[in-house]
Amino acid sequence: MWKQDTLELRPRKRGFHLITSEVIDFLPELRKLKVGLLHLQLLHTSASLTLNENADPDVRHDMEAFINDRIPGNLPYFRHTLEGDDDMPAHIKASFLGTELTLAVRNGGLATGTWQGIWLGEHRDHGGSRRLMLTLNGE
Amino acid sequence: MWKQDTLELRPRKRGFHLITSEVIDFLPELRKLKVGLLHLQLLHTSASLTLNENADPDVRHDMEAFINDRIPGNLPYFRHTLEGDDDMPAHIKASFLGTELTLAVRNGGLATGTWQGIWLGEHRDHGGSRRLMLTLNGE
Amino acid sequence: MWKQDTLELRPRKRGFHLITSEVIDFLPELRKLKVGLLHLQLLHTSASLTLNENADPDVRHDMEAFINDRIPGNLPYFRHTLEGDDDMPAHIKASFLGTELTLAVRNGGLATGTWQGIWLGEHRDHGGSRRLMLTLNGE
Repeated sequence: MWKQDTLELRPRKRGFHLITSEVIDFLPELRKLKVGLLHLQLLHTSASLTLNENADPDVRHDMEAFINDRIPGNLPYFRHTLEGDDDMPAHIKASFLGTELTLAVRNGGLATGTWQGIWLGEHRDHGGSRRLMLTLNGE
Repeated sequence: MWKQDTLELRPRKRGFHLITSEVIDFLPELRKLKVGLLHLQLLHTSASLTLNENADPDVRHDMEAFINDRIPGNLPYFRHTLEGDDDMPAHIKASFLGTELTLAVRNGGLATGTWQGIWLGEHRDHGGSRRLMLTLNGE
Repeated sequence: MWKQDTLELRPRKRGFHLITSEVIDFLPELRKLKVGLLHLQLLHTSASLTLNENADPDVRHDMEAFINDRIPGNLPYFRHTLEGDDDMPAHIKASFLGTELTLAVRNGGLATGTWQGIWLGEHRDHGGSRRLMLTLNGE
């Protein structure tokens, strides 16, 4: 069984945001599958998707502090600067963290570990809404 | 054909470890497939999976030295520090390197290049055993 | 429907290169699919694959400048140095950026966003031709 649809994520502020339940609620077909895979692809190049901790919000804070510290906006060799200091770092973060994920599906749900959640990384100051293409395959 | 199972990886010390043959031996169904995909997902947020060199162990040494140098544990802005200096860096390494992989399957085996192997990155000092969810799909 | 084949990419100079149209042209079967996934796996450990901007070449320039700045070749703790200063950084870049991608397929084409393109990251000075294993699954 294949199922594909685009989830429109509401605008979020710069930083990392848990979107696991939003994804699951959007896909009722997930509940019918015994085994399969769910593929998630952001249709953007300045935001990211990653699996990380779903509990302590300090983990998301520290990740954001770290990437802003290590991938700053004012590096002297940057040429792609017209759209602001948050633009080129956003592209770099998107490639370092990734913009697509494949997740195991098992017994009607995601087979994520106890502490795993899906994070949206919003790397622009004003990124606006973000489209997430979801492709489900399984039986 | 779909097949899904969880491989329990024994505890390993902090660093990078080749697990390719362990994965292949765990999945006899792989040998029956002419074409397909194998998805691997660690069910943890402080370890990682990546494809890299399967020969010279110095490459694994240098990768570990590099990530410890560039993703240290004592950054002043870290808040998630209760579990020790190895905790928050482990979360960051997990997202930078990734915790899931999809690999091409061809003629009864993994279609990896000559020098490619599957690396488990253990980023905690005492991470314990790690569960790896394997999902195979093909024909 | 499954389809698998290896695309031989011609030698490219060190840096990032757009290969989206080369991939699409190589796979006429893509046009027959309503929904599916395309998996791309580089069979090498010193080059990378990532999704990023397909328009302004300055983004590719800045990404290359950034990774050379932050992942240099002459770090004192590197042991894997016999093949030159570009070797160990190439392995690190391959794992940070990734060597495999899964992309959504929709209505006979890739379901990438308006600004998304497939980048080959060539991280060696003389990497030679690169093999890219393509696996298509869908209906």
